[in-house]
This record gives sequence, structure tokens and C-alpha cells, in this order.
Amino acid sequence: MEQSLAFLPPDSRILARRDTIVADLVDLIGREGIVSDPFELVPFETDGFIACRNLPLAVALPRTTAEVSELMKYCARYDIPVIPRGAGTSLSGGAIPQEDALVIALTRMNRILEVDFENRAAVVQAGVTNLSISDAVGADGFFYAPDPSSQLACTIGGNIGMNSGGAHCLKYGVTTNNLMGVKLVLFDGTVIELGGKALDAGGLDLMGVVCGSEGQLGIVTEATVRLLAKPEGARPVLFGFETAEGASACVSEIIGSGLIPVAIEFMDKPAIEICEAFAHAGYPMDVEALLIVEVEGSETEMDRMLQHIISIARRHGVKAVKESQSAMEAAAIWKGRKSAFGATGRIADYICMDGTVPLSELTNVLKGTYDICAHYGLRVANVFHAGDGNMHPLILYNINDPEQSAAAEAAGNDILKLCVDHGGCLTGEHGVGIEKRDLMRHQYKEADLAQQMRLRAAFDPKWILNPSKVFPLEGRTAA
Amino acid sequence: MEQSLAFLPPDSRILARRDTIVADLVDLIGREGIVSDPFELVPFETDGFIACRNLPLAVALPRTTAEVSELMKYCARYDIPVIPRGAGTSLSGGAIPQEDALVIALTRMNRILEVDFENRAAVVQAGVTNLSISDAVGADGFFYAPDPSSQLACTIGGNIGMNSGGAHCLKYGVTTNNLMGVKLVLFDGTVIELGGKALDAGGLDLMGVVCGSEGQLGIVTEATVRLLAKPEGARPVLFGFETAEGASACVSEIIGSGLIPVAIEFMDKPAIEICEAFAHAGYPMDVEALLIVEVEGSETEMDRMLQHIISIARRHGVKAVKESQSAMEAAAIWKGRKSAFGATGRIADYICMDGTVPLSELTNVLKGTYDICAHYGLRVANVFHAGDGNMHPLILYNINDPEQSAAAEAAGNDILKLCVDHGGCLTGEHGVGIEKRDLMRHQYKEADLAQQMRLRAAFDPKWILNPSKVFPLEGRTAA
Repeated sequence: MEQSLAFLPPDSRILARRDTIVADLVDLIGREGIVSDPFELVPFETDGFIACRNLPLAVALPRTTAEVSELMKYCARYDIPVIPRGAGTSLSGGAIPQEDALVIALTRMNRILEVDFENRAAVVQAGVTNLSISDAVGADGFFYAPDPSSQLACTIGGNIGMNSGGAHCLKYGVTTNNLMGVKLVLFDGTVIELGGKALDAGGLDLMGVVCGSEGQLGIVTEATVRLLAKPEGARPVLFGFETAEGASACVSEIIGSGLIPVAIEFMDKPAIEICEAFAHAGYPMDVEALLIVEVEGSETEMDRMLQHIISIARRHGVKAVKESQSAMEAAAIWKGRKSAFGATGRIADYICMDGTVPLSELTNVLKGTYDICAHYGLRVANVFHAGDGNMHPLILYNINDPEQSAAAEAAGNDILKLCVDHGGCLTGEHGVGIEKRDLMRHQYKEADLAQQMRLRAAFDPKWILNPSKVFPLEGRTAA
Repeated sequence: MEQSLAFLPPDSRILARRDTIVADLVDLIGREGIVSDPFELVPFETDGFIACRNLPLAVALPRTTAEVSELMKYCARYDIPVIPRGAGTSLSGGAIPQEDALVIALTRMNRILEVDFENRAAVVQAGVTNLSISDAVGADGFFYAPDPSSQLACTIGGNIGMNSGGAHCLKYGVTTNNLMGVKLVLFDGTVIELGGKALDAGGLDLMGVVCGSEGQLGIVTEATVRLLAKPEGARPVLFGFETAEGASACVSEIIGSGLIPVAIEFMDKPAIEICEAFAHAGYPMDVEALLIVEVEGSETEMDRMLQHIISIARRHGVKAVKESQSAMEAAAIWKGRKSAFGATGRIADYICMDGTVPLSELTNVLKGTYDICAHYGLRVANVFHAGDGNMHPLILYNINDPEQSAAAEAAGNDILKLCVDHGGCLTGEHGVGIEKRDLMRHQYKEADLAQQMRLRAAFDPKWILNPSKVFPLEGRTAA
């Protein structure tokens, strides 16, 4: 099974009618709401995945749910593909358009509509950035938990599409665990509301399946999200280990003992060197791997949990334990970790994988990752959310060397297959997008994929929403 | 809109072929796996809802997923309705059969297949009882969190069907938050696997929509559930209030402050009197309402959280605070609460409603509940999971008095509509079943219901799985 980044071939009838379509769209939501100049379309041709690009037919920038509904009605009538887009930070190509598609970018719908502390909820438009929710409620002692590294830029609509995670999701869960309700525009413009401020919902849990559906079931225009109270205190602690295996075995034992720190981040030696050179975080350099373990609560609670964790770490060859002594040191520790992708980009091109594995398989899969990269003669740096088994190997290569590029892609595929073969999953938080579409057959049996496609078709019988993504192009049974 | 408990009319062709069908089923899974004697079918004619009853065509008691698959293949071929059943403890009639249906009862599939502490997971067959999971891992310091009051009897398959909750779900979430994977037999016998021990899943989150789908999307035969470490200690505390409004305002302020105790249970004066007379729990009798607030953690942590909660309670007219001084006192406090339904049944017939509301509406909806019951001249006792806004008014009446019966049903409907009108939901944890089927139109717009039905049909295009439930019989658009 070869992986490809091919899109569905554009519909020539749509391309031929481009000017008419643009004029119609302008009629629907106004000139200032439609981008159609090829030069102005360039920022929308790809996203954070960057491995492929297409200029879309046009981009719409609606300001209201009603405008999104009008746009969808029009596109459904003429079978025009639609690519929903937030900030375009997708790492799996989820927002990359196809040539015959209208991109509907939600970035102008960026208002926080309501903050409701009594129900610990905020109602926001889909284009609000992740971090701005926490910013809006921080002074009152609350925050919104999922924290993808792109949280300064990425939007809540995109987070819902990809079911985004982040370093602190070990304790607080990913987007689906913090989402209470959505307003959803269906393929034909129908607006439905799912969930809300009350517990549970009668009937089927459509909200759960919409979260993580990568813009294929409808366009989320509003979301009600859970607010949490900020902890009394939080303390990241560095643990340096003699071996990478020791560090990963330590993670398994921490979680297996029932402890749930807020975060357990893993960095191997190459990642430590790359990040320390960039961020001067004070990471120990004489170790093979380190864990950043963050605990939170009162001073007493943090001390107690740390004692327990340190006693576990001692059984796995810990060489250094460094508690942050100040807010500045704590910030430096996280800065090193959160800048890992940027710091890596300084020294080489890289592709970042996003597999998950059961924690009991962490050591085996890490070892397998090293073996695979050695086989292809490539360097790899591992920096990832270890506590929930979400691995992010960064495979380093030279993008101008076709052989290395092909080797990097092959190594990435082998690593994801390794994750699946160890009971894991192709994706933890970046989504399938176009990147991992063809690997879906490695994850799922035909019957599983067929049922997913039937569900997809029950929402979007014309398959106009983000149609080139997630499901392999061949054998779309319900298309 | 009148509510009805009518089932779809039985298919006379199926009834006429009953003997052949039974013989075929015996061929499929053996004589000891099929119940067909009318006398032996009686235990399956209703469930915990008891408001209506039908003898099914037959009952199958499969022992393996393969047998369930064979049964579904057969039923799909001949369009025979199928009612999945666990322990039959449903409070909304979810397991009540129709006359032309095969009941597939999972009670023989009652093995715990694997306990995996390293991944904090247990793999169990669907017929395992809820409590037996915690029993199996308790000695190692773990437990399974959702704790419906029927946990001694109810099965994990039924819990998944209804997305069951319980008193301690305020902190730990309901079934969907503790479910990692399922094995599902589709309407045509296809077996698919959803989720597993690793975080997240590529593609659509079918597991989320299966959880709470009331046996209409397939039959769950195995589940992988999350295990949690038992807390160091737990302490229920009684708070007695001068007014019911004060108690409910206190709940809103506790949650609004960001505190998340393990449980906040509410009892009004009628409920206190009923439960105390039965359980002798030591409840204060000179108050209008009480809260049972349970905190957990180390002694220091519990003390700190309680101090905070007590200071909030003082602002809302708390008259009495009683901390349990021993494990025996703690058990007595919970015994009173958990026996509320049984204790109520001693003094009157009752129907138990299961609406949820945003916490900010708790006081208003409670007041509205009293007004409604007063209007119909009926007594009501309120005992419910206040922390997550899940109300359980028990409407007392005399089942042998047709006028009172009709009044109780009307009052129940009015209360559920009141919940919906205040931004809440028809059901918190008991499901829609047949009880609330016709109220779904009050909760949902046509477009919402139509989308749910399209999704349902994408799993079960023949609508053979539990077909009389959840969706109003009139206007089934995708049927």
C-alpha cells in the first residue's frame, strides 16, 4: 500500500464556472467577504503541513452562522467542494484546499459571546483562538484546558475539527472532553445545535462524533466549552535518566500506579541538545533522556505527589532531579519543550509523526523508532506527550535531497504502522488529514472503514465537505 | 403533543413464523441458548421501567461475539426486530421488548477478560456487572468510576447503551468519559472494533456515538474501560439548610467557584423524611434540604476543600454541618441516599424523572417542580445528583387510582419540558427509551432529529435494532 498526497481530480465544470460562482458568492455575503484574486488566495493554498499546496477556487470569510448557512446551501446546490478552515495550523494537511473548492475560513467569527462562570462555560465563535479563551477568564481564576503548542494562533473550530490535545491533556483530557456544545451548519445549510450547558443529551451523541471529524460532517460556527478553575500552584520538575528505556519505563510505572500528574513530557538526547541550544532551559546534558513532570495543587499536595514520583524514578536509573525554584525557571523549562519544533527547524528539515501507543508499549515502540530511522540512515529526535502515549518523533532530513525526502517519508510511515501494530493509533492530536489518509487501511479493517463512511455520508451525502481527506480515495463504499 | 408508550405494531408474518424462527435460532446457537417457552419468557417482558410489558418472540443467550454475529445475520435476513438486553434495570424502558422481537440478552457473557494496570484498563464482556469490575481490581487499589445506584445488578453493556452516570460522576464523568473501546456487532452481523488502549482514534469517533445509543446502532459484546486509582481517603459531609433554595444556590456557588468535589447530592425535606425513616442515617430533621458533599484525597486536602465549601454554605443559610467521624457513619450517610428509591417505594407508588439543567437554573427548576406537583395535587420528593444538574424528582401517587396515575404522568412530562425550557435535557443517565420518546420533539428541532435518524440509519438501515425506542414513531424521515 503506497501513500499518496493526491487530491480528488478537480471538477472541470466547476473550474469553468469560476467567475459566475464568485459573483454569486459576492451576492450572498458581499464583496468584502469573498477572496478571489489569485495573489490574495496564496495564503490559503496550504497549511502547517506544507507538503502539498493548491490554490482554491475562492475563499469566503463569513461573519455569521447565517452567512455560513447561505454559503453551504449554494455549494450543495452546485456540488462545489468546501474546505472549512480556522487558522491553517493543521499539521496533517486538514485545511489544504483542492482547486475546485471554496474555502470557508472562520477567522472573522472571532468573538467570545458569553462567559458563564456559574455553569463553568464559555460560548465562543469558531474563529476565536484557543489561548484567547484562557486569557478572557484568567483574571477570574479560570482557564480552558486543551493547550496545543499552536494555541496562540489556532482556533477553537480547528481544535474541534482535529480533537486537539496538548501537553496538559494528560490530566484534563483533549478537546472532546472539554466541549459542551456546538452549533453546526450541515452540508445543505441546515443549522443544528448539539449539546449545551446541561449534562448529557437525549438521543444520539452527535457532538462526540463531530469532534475530530476534520470538517467532514459540517461546519462548526459556535462552541460552548468547559472552563476549569486554575490550580493553586503548578511545578514542572526535570528528571534526567541514564537511558531512554529507563525514562519510558518510568512513565509506564507512574501511570500504572494510578498517579495522574498534569503533564509528563519526554525528550531524548537529540531533542535535549536541540532544545537546550535554542532555549537555554537549563536541561541536564549528561543524560540520555529527560522527563518534564508537572504537578499541581497546594505546596503540600505537590510535595507529596513528587515524593511518590521520585521514588518511582529511582527504580529506573534517574541521574538528576531538578525542581523549578521560581516562576522564571518553570517558564524556561516549558519554553525549551514548547519550542522543540521551531528549534529543530533551525538545524534541519523534519517531519513530525503523531502516533499513539498504549503506555505498556512505549519502550518497545521507542526502540523500534530508533531502529527504523537507523535503517533509513536518518537522525531522529523524540519529544512527546509521554503520559498519554502520544509520540512525536521528528525525523530530520534535507528536503532538497530527493532520496532523503523519500526515506523520511518511508520511515514516518513505518513508524506509524509500528504504533498501530503495537495496539496504538495513527494520530493522537494532529488528525488524519491528507497526510495519513492512505494509512487508514493499516489501522482499520474494511468493515470499520465502511461503517465510518456510512456515517460520514449520513451527514454529507454529496461528500462535498473536505472530500479529499481522511478516507482513502479508492473504494469509498458510501460515496 | 401527547406522550404514548405504544410500540410499533408487530409484524404478523414474523409472529406466524415463530416456530420456524425458534427452530432456526436453536440451530444457530443450541437449545440451551434459546428461551421460547412463554412461561420462561415472562422475566423478559419488561424492565425497571415496568410501565408497559410485552412477551417477546424469543430470547437468545449467546456466549460469544460470534454467536451474537450469527443471530444478527439471521435477524437482518428476515427483518426480525432485536432488543439488546443486559440486566434489565433500565428506568426508561430501554430493554422492554416488542412481540415480534428477539431479545438478545448478554448476561452469559460475563467474564472479565483482562486487567491491565500498566494501561489502567480492563477488558470485559458486555454482561459483566458494573460493580464486579471495581471488585476485581479493588485489592490492587483501583476502581471503575461510574456508579449507577443499580451497580450491583446492571451490566457494563447496559451502562454503555444508556451512558450511565451515578453519584460520583461529578468528578469522574459518566460512562462515555471512562470508556476506551468496544467490540460492536452491527445489524448485519459484521463485527467492528472501536477505540482501544491507546489515546484517540484516527477517523470518526464512532465509539462516542455508540455510547448512549440505547442499543440502536449495534450490540456491544466487549468493552475496554478505564481504571482509576482509589483516592487516599474519602469523606461525605452532611449540610442541612434552612431552605431548598439556599441549598441549590450553594451548589451553584460551589461549582461556579471551580471546586469539584467527588459528589454533591441533594435531598429536600420529603426525601429526607422518607430516607431517614428507612435507613436511620442520622440526617438532620429540622432542615428543609440537605446536601451530601463528598470530598477525597489526603486528610489535609479534604480539610482544605471542606473549609472552602463550609464558607460558601454559610452564605446560603446552612444550619447544620455534620462530618462523618468513621467509616460506619460514612456508610450510613450513603445508605440513606442510595436507598432513596426503595424507601420511597415503601410509602407510595412513584415515577422518577431524570432531567438535567444548567446549574444556574437549579433553583428555578426546583421551584417550578414544586409548583407543577402542587398544581396536580401530588406529593414530590427530590433527591438527585445536584453537582452536575441531574434532577430526579420522585412523583408520588397511587397506581390504582387512574386519575392520579394520569396526573403523575402529566406532571412528569411538564417537569421534563421545564428542564428543556431552562436549557436542560430530557435525560441525564436513564436514557430516552420508550418513556421519553415522544418528548424528543420538545427537546429537538426537526432538523436535529432528522440528522440523528440519518446517523441511526447509517448503522442500521433496516431499523431492526430496538426500533420502537428513542425516536418518535411518527415522521421517521430516514426509516
